[in-house]
Amino acid sequence: MVYRRIFDDAISRLKDERRYRVFADLERDAEAFPRALWRRSKDCAEEIVIWCSNDYLCMGRHPDVIGAMTQAAARHGVGSGGTRNISGTNHPLVELEAELADLHGKEAALVFTSGWISNLATISTIGDLLPNCLILSDQLNHNSMIEGVRRSKAERKIFRHNDLAHLEELLAEAGHERAKLIVFESLYSMNGDIAPIGQIADLAKRYNAMTYMDEVHAVGLYGPRGGGIAERDGVMDRIDVIEGTLAKGFGTLGGYIAASEAIVDAVRSYAPSFIFTTALPPAVAAAANTAVRFLKQRQGAELRALHQRQAMLTKHALSAAGLPVMANPSHIVPVLVGDAELCKAATDMLLERHSIYIQPINYPTVAKGTERLRITPGPLHTDAHVAHLVESLVDVWHSLKLSFVEKPKILEFKREADAHCTYPEFKRAAE
Amino acid sequence: MVYRRIFDDAISRLKDERRYRVFADLERDAEAFPRALWRRSKDCAEEIVIWCSNDYLCMGRHPDVIGAMTQAAARHGVGSGGTRNISGTNHPLVELEAELADLHGKEAALVFTSGWISNLATISTIGDLLPNCLILSDQLNHNSMIEGVRRSKAERKIFRHNDLAHLEELLAEAGHERAKLIVFESLYSMNGDIAPIGQIADLAKRYNAMTYMDEVHAVGLYGPRGGGIAERDGVMDRIDVIEGTLAKGFGTLGGYIAASEAIVDAVRSYAPSFIFTTALPPAVAAAANTAVRFLKQRQGAELRALHQRQAMLTKHALSAAGLPVMANPSHIVPVLVGDAELCKAATDMLLERHSIYIQPINYPTVAKGTERLRITPGPLHTDAHVAHLVESLVDVWHSLKLSFVEKPKILEFKREADAHCTYPEFKRAAE
Ligand SMILES: Cc1ncc(COP(=O)(O)O)c(C=O)c1O
Ligand SMILES: Cc1ncc(COP(=O)(O)O)c(C=O)c1O
Repeated sequence: MVYRRIFDDAISRLKDERRYRVFADLERDAEAFPRALWRRSKDCAEEIVIWCSNDYLCMGRHPDVIGAMTQAAARHGVGSGGTRNISGTNHPLVELEAELADLHGKEAALVFTSGWISNLATISTIGDLLPNCLILSDQLNHNSMIEGVRRSKAERKIFRHNDLAHLEELLAEAGHERAKLIVFESLYSMNGDIAPIGQIADLAKRYNAMTYMDEVHAVGLYGPRGGGIAERDGVMDRIDVIEGTLAKGFGTLGGYIAASEAIVDAVRSYAPSFIFTTALPPAVAAAANTAVRFLKQRQGAELRALHQRQAMLTKHALSAAGLPVMANPSHIVPVLVGDAELCKAATDMLLERHSIYIQPINYPTVAKGTERLRITPGPLHTDAHVAHLVESLVDVWHSLKLSFVEKPKILEFKREADAHCTYPEFKRAAE
Repeated sequence: MVYRRIFDDAISRLKDERRYRVFADLERDAEAFPRALWRRSKDCAEEIVIWCSNDYLCMGRHPDVIGAMTQAAARHGVGSGGTRNISGTNHPLVELEAELADLHGKEAALVFTSGWISNLATISTIGDLLPNCLILSDQLNHNSMIEGVRRSKAERKIFRHNDLAHLEELLAEAGHERAKLIVFESLYSMNGDIAPIGQIADLAKRYNAMTYMDEVHAVGLYGPRGGGIAERDGVMDRIDVIEGTLAKGFGTLGGYIAASEAIVDAVRSYAPSFIFTTALPPAVAAAANTAVRFLKQRQGAELRALHQRQAMLTKHALSAAGLPVMANPSHIVPVLVGDAELCKAATDMLLERHSIYIQPINYPTVAKGTERLRITPGPLHTDAHVAHLVESLVDVWHSLKLSFVEKPKILEFKREADAHCTYPEFKRAAE
């Protein structure tokens, strides 16, 4: 047994399959975002534009949010100092949990150190507490949900992505009496498609199942107060557990669930991945709380409108240029390449030649043959940024001989809506 | 299937077994630490002294560390904006990894969002990459290590706590050729005892096993540069993977491993719990980095000396008063109660009557019959704080009729050492 060789071989395999990832060393600039510094080597840094951030609404650089972190750090220090039970429950975190429960119209909320952990902890705990539970899991669920399912003792069945008929079949098979937990996402981040939440809730009701929904890519972004797709669709009260992150729309770090007192208390009391780890620092909780509160207000709604505008403009402009945008009803702009090596080459060329930073999305994150660029326009990408993106992609598409769409279906984009937007940063975006 | 009842019953069971935990809502005060505000209800807050924080060296409130967070937040914003691969690798995090590799004398380091995740990710990934691996795990390993072992496909055997003979027996049984990973901690946080690291490394060498060691409760605290017990004992280079946290001695949030390039690259590339989650914010990384750097310097060594002084003084004073301190060679001060209900009653009385906050440590964190108070003196607990703690514990012990030690073995405590301490906060502590 030569240990070293095993690790070297594991890395070589990834390199052979063109799956070896090199992380770009980025320096975000709060004032210039989405512009940032890319350190390509020790003594060479270049300015680039980030087009694949999940800080969707740029809340991570919002002055109020930064101010909240700074103030809380000065007042409480930078860490929580313990697990939730042993000296780590800090007041800003308690306030944040109340704010999140309110956001989703639930009795209670529980904050974890990440969305990843909230899925692992909650799904596995519920799966274990419900006797002889059957977990019905959407085929495209995120890794953290799959880990939660795996970690629990419950039996698992996979239903085809967003396929109500298949889900119903499995529910019917299990029968009314057996404990069942339906686990799915509201908005799937790699395709940008949206689950039929109300209909899934109907099925859950009919067959007496519990529902667990990941709104990670929607909280802050959708609904009148940023409660997500379920809020937008008026179905929040029909989902038992809503899970979200503080690290995307809310721009900071951490994850959470919102549910009934009983469920939250059970997860709080039984989940080792919640119990045996240091709590989120007060400064992070305070920053997240400020973002959540901001996005509940009118200004939040305007920021959401601006975000949607820039996403729709980007889709529109890319489609009009014949680039193969994968259609979907959300803010995610996936552009199909269909080959791992070309996908990597396209993003390298975008970075080297056009100072545009987008990561290639390859297997195993998406299925082979569906490799893509995943573009996430934000409210601070200006119309000029969008124009530059389109030009650059067209250039890369030509250079790499990637295929254009022959007769692109041009998406509608109405500039008239602009007149209604009073968000202060809008002017800058629309310049 | 009535779901609600299942969750209610799960909670009732905990209440019946006196294991239901209520989190104290604390407001840390960076300037007054270890004093803090305890919000006992919506409109009632009281000042208390925290005696069970794992911010062992009070780095969480160190002005330089707070300054680093504040500056980084202003400059880079409060979040990283993505996973490590997709736009989330931020420059302060890259710097932090280099600093941690240097701290442990390893080729590379990798930062995770928590120590919990670093154990889960690394142990399971190594266990899966090594063909037909046997994991040998210390009986008292932390939950996060157990989760890592469970998550991997590897076979597992438990060796009796710190028992070299038992470990050797299992190693010999497995034979020289089979892949073997020994998983243990340097300092066990509930007992405060320390592993025979060098001898475990000897066995690993003799039987051709890899070694994985959790130094979570020792990094920052031991060794000339805060590299942990392995640095203190001069055996860092003999351990393959050293795992640590940024949330205890370093006062912030996050976890890490330090190891060879090959191991770090393999974990980075294969561990889903590392790959599919948002990276630590630049502001948190910058704060942690400042703490790590500070503790490498002379001032760090003085802070460590002061920490040890206050821990030893506390042990000394409690023993002298006849309280049943559980002997150990570290900074942890466990005081035996031996009953869950009395343990809870003792801590309630400490809080209500003496404004001292210590959490009871009950099953399942420790074995039934060994319930205890776990006291963690810090460099900012003054001698007067210690005196107050002793008086208060004696009062509680009398009130609850807990047993005193008849003829306490008085630990030595030399005040002469004080003369050598130049740490600025020392004066305040020794007042
Ligand atoms: C659907 C989904 N759920 C959960 C997570 C994890 O959230 P977090 O980044 O807060 O760990 C992610 C991505 O990171 C995700 O895409
Ligand atoms: C031995 C040990 N390892 C790992 C952890 C987890 O570290 P973190 O709090 O950074 O998740 C803890 C406690 O929290 C611990 O006691």
